[in-house]
Amino acid sequence: MARSKEDYVSYENSGVSIDANDQMVTRISKCVASTFGPRVIELENGFAGLFRLDYDEKLFKRNYKSPVLVSCTDGVGTKIKIAQMMDKYDTVGIDLVAMSVNDMIVQGAEPLFFLDYLAVNKLVPEDIAGMVEGVAAGCKMSDCALIGGETAEMPDIYRKGEFDMAGFAVGVVERDRIITGDKVEKGDVILGLASSGVHSNGFSLVRHICFKQAKLKPTDRPDQLKGAAIGQTLLEPTLIYVKPIVKLLRQYKVKQVVHAMAHITGGGLVGNIPRVLPGNCDAVIRKDAWPVPDIFPFLQETGPVSEEEMYRVFNMGIGYVLVVAPDFAKSIKKKLARYGEKVYRIGTVKSGTGKVILK
Amino acid sequence: MARSKEDYVSYENSGVSIDANDQMVTRISKCVASTFGPRVIELENGFAGLFRLDYDEKLFKRNYKSPVLVSCTDGVGTKIKIAQMMDKYDTVGIDLVAMSVNDMIVQGAEPLFFLDYLAVNKLVPEDIAGMVEGVAAGCKMSDCALIGGETAEMPDIYRKGEFDMAGFAVGVVERDRIITGDKVEKGDVILGLASSGVHSNGFSLVRHICFKQAKLKPTDRPDQLKGAAIGQTLLEPTLIYVKPIVKLLRQYKVKQVVHAMAHITGGGLVGNIPRVLPGNCDAVIRKDAWPVPDIFPFLQETGPVSEEEMYRVFNMGIGYVLVVAPDFAKSIKKKLARYGEKVYRIGTVKSGTGKVILK
Repeated sequence: MARSKEDYVSYENSGVSIDANDQMVTRISKCVASTFGPRVIELENGFAGLFRLDYDEKLFKRNYKSPVLVSCTDGVGTKIKIAQMMDKYDTVGIDLVAMSVNDMIVQGAEPLFFLDYLAVNKLVPEDIAGMVEGVAAGCKMSDCALIGGETAEMPDIYRKGEFDMAGFAVGVVERDRIITGDKVEKGDVILGLASSGVHSNGFSLVRHICFKQAKLKPTDRPDQLKGAAIGQTLLEPTLIYVKPIVKLLRQYKVKQVVHAMAHITGGGLVGNIPRVLPGNCDAVIRKDAWPVPDIFPFLQETGPVSEEEMYRVFNMGIGYVLVVAPDFAKSIKKKLARYGEKVYRIGTVKSGTGKVILK
Repeated sequence: MARSKEDYVSYENSGVSIDANDQMVTRISKCVASTFGPRVIELENGFAGLFRLDYDEKLFKRNYKSPVLVSCTDGVGTKIKIAQMMDKYDTVGIDLVAMSVNDMIVQGAEPLFFLDYLAVNKLVPEDIAGMVEGVAAGCKMSDCALIGGETAEMPDIYRKGEFDMAGFAVGVVERDRIITGDKVEKGDVILGLASSGVHSNGFSLVRHICFKQAKLKPTDRPDQLKGAAIGQTLLEPTLIYVKPIVKLLRQYKVKQVVHAMAHITGGGLVGNIPRVLPGNCDAVIRKDAWPVPDIFPFLQETGPVSEEEMYRVFNMGIGYVLVVAPDFAKSIKKKLARYGEKVYRIGTVKSGTGKVILK
C-alpha cells in the first residue's frame, strides 16, 4: 500500500527546522573564520576543529620544552536572562569566553582555542548569529581561535525564548611555569584589576533583587546608577584579562615574580583568593583601596543584602587579583596600567591560616 | 540601624543551594579521579584542568613531530528526556563522551581529555553524581581523562527535573596523518561498525513517535522489540569507537590505508558519509549488508516514517564507517572484529558527484 508524503512524520515537523539551521551556519561562518590564525587547519565539513600546536616548527618548540595543556569550561549562569530581557544576544558571547579564559590564565597559561555549545528553544538565525558574533569577539580579545561549536535546538527542554550556552577553552603553559600559589609568602603584595561591574556571577541574586523585589524594568534608571539603565548596566560584558596578563608573564620569563592569581567569580574575593593561598598565609584586603562601582551599593541597599554577603557573592569592583613579590609590585602595577588596566594595590599577605581578611 | 540576619536576601534563598553543591562535589571527585593517568596534573582548588602533553619527555615526542590538537563539542540532544522519564542519569554521560570522541577519531586523532558542562533546575546530588559517573565511565572507554567540568544550577532556565549537558573533548593527531578523505578513490571499500541502536540523534522524532503519537509508556514492551522495554532500548548508550579505531590506525603507521571515516550521527549514512567523500566519488551502500536493529523498523512502522527519512535521520544500525583501500579491506575487517566490533562490508566507492546511493 502506497502512502502519500503527507502521511509521513518527518524530522522537520517534530519541531527541528533544518533550513533555519542552514541559514544560521552561513551567517556565522564568516565571523568564526575571523578568529583564525595560521595555526588553524580548516576542513570543509570536518568532524572536529584542528589547531596546530607548533605552526612553524620553531616558535612553539622554542618556548615550550614540556607543554601542559590547560582547559576550562563554564557558562554565564543566569546572566542570559538579562540578555533575553534586553533582546540583545551578542555581549553574553563575550562573557562566555571571559569566564573560561580568565580562569585559564590564573595558572599561567596562554589561551589557544575555544569552542561553544549553544542550546535554544528555537533557532532564530539573527539571535544565534548575535551570540556567535559575541563569542568570536571574545575570542579575538583573548587571542584565541574559535575552532568549533554546536548549536542545538531543543524545544522540549528550553521554553520559548530560553537558551543556555557553555564554553570550553584550551591553552598551554610550560610545565615549570605553572602558577599554583605555592610561592606565595608573607609580605607579598596583592594587586587588583578593576572589573566592569557584576561580570557573570551572582545573577540569581541580582535578578531576585532588581526584578522580583524592586520590580524594576530593564530600562529603568535608578538614581544610584547616575542615569544608567539597570538592564544595560547588568549586561556589561565581563572584562577579559588575557592580553595584559599574558604580556606581563612574558616580561618575567626567568624570575617568577607573580606568585599567584585569582579570577574573582562566584564567591567573590573571600571565596576565590583562598583557592591560591598556602595554608599558612592570610590575604589582608583593604576595602577602601579601590572604587566600588555604583551597581554594588545599589544592589546592597535595594536587597537589602548584608555587606558580608555582598563580598561573598560579587567581585565588588575587582575582577582579577595578582599576588606578587613585593619588590616587583610597583613595576608590575605600572606595566599593567600601561597595558590599559585599572590596577589597585588592594592588600598584602600575612601569616595566617589561608583565609581572606577584609578591612 | 542594625538589621537582623533574616532581613537579608542571601544567595541561598534566591534559589541556589551551596550546601547541595558541596555534597555533590565530594561525591563525584572520586569517580573523576579514576579517569586520571600520569599525564594529569592535579591542583587542589585549581582554576583549570592540566594535562601534560609529553609526560615522560620521550613517548610523546617520539610519536609526534608536528602535533595538531583536535577538538569537538556536542550535547546528547533530547535523549536526556528519556533519561528523565526513566529517572536514570548515568548512561547519558556515556552518550555525551561518545558524541565528541567518535567525531574526533574521524580525523585520525587519539583523545586526550574531556570536560563536561551540566546545567540543571536543581542540584540533586544523586542525579548529578550519576551523570558524572556516566561521563567518567565514557572517558575510561575512550582512554581520556576527565580533567574539568562545571555544574550550574539554574532554576529559572530549566524547569523542574529538566537538565542539559554539553561535552568537550581534546585529542591529538600528527599533522601528516590527519584523515580528511582526500585519499578516497573509486574502488575503495566501505566498512560499517554496528551501532547499539538509536545512539544520540533523532530523539525529537523518536519521542514524537513513541510518546506523543503512540502514547507509549517507557516501560511498555512493544511486540516488535521482542520483549525489550521501549525506554530501556532508547536509553542504550552510544557505542564508543575510540579503542578499536585508535588501535587500528596504530597498525598502519606507514601506509595510509584508512582513507576516510565518518561518525554516523544526525543525517544518517546519507548525510555523514558525503562529509568525507571527494566531489568525484559516490558511496554505494547495500542496505541488506547488515542487520537493522529492531528499534528502527518499529519506529518506521509506528510513525509511520518513510524509509528515505529513516536513513536521513537515523544510523539504521551502522554507527561508524571506514572507507579503506580495497587490498586492505579484509585484514582491516578482521582486525576490527578481533577488537570486538561487529563489522560489515557495506559498500564501495564509485565515480560520482559526492553523494550516497542506497541500494
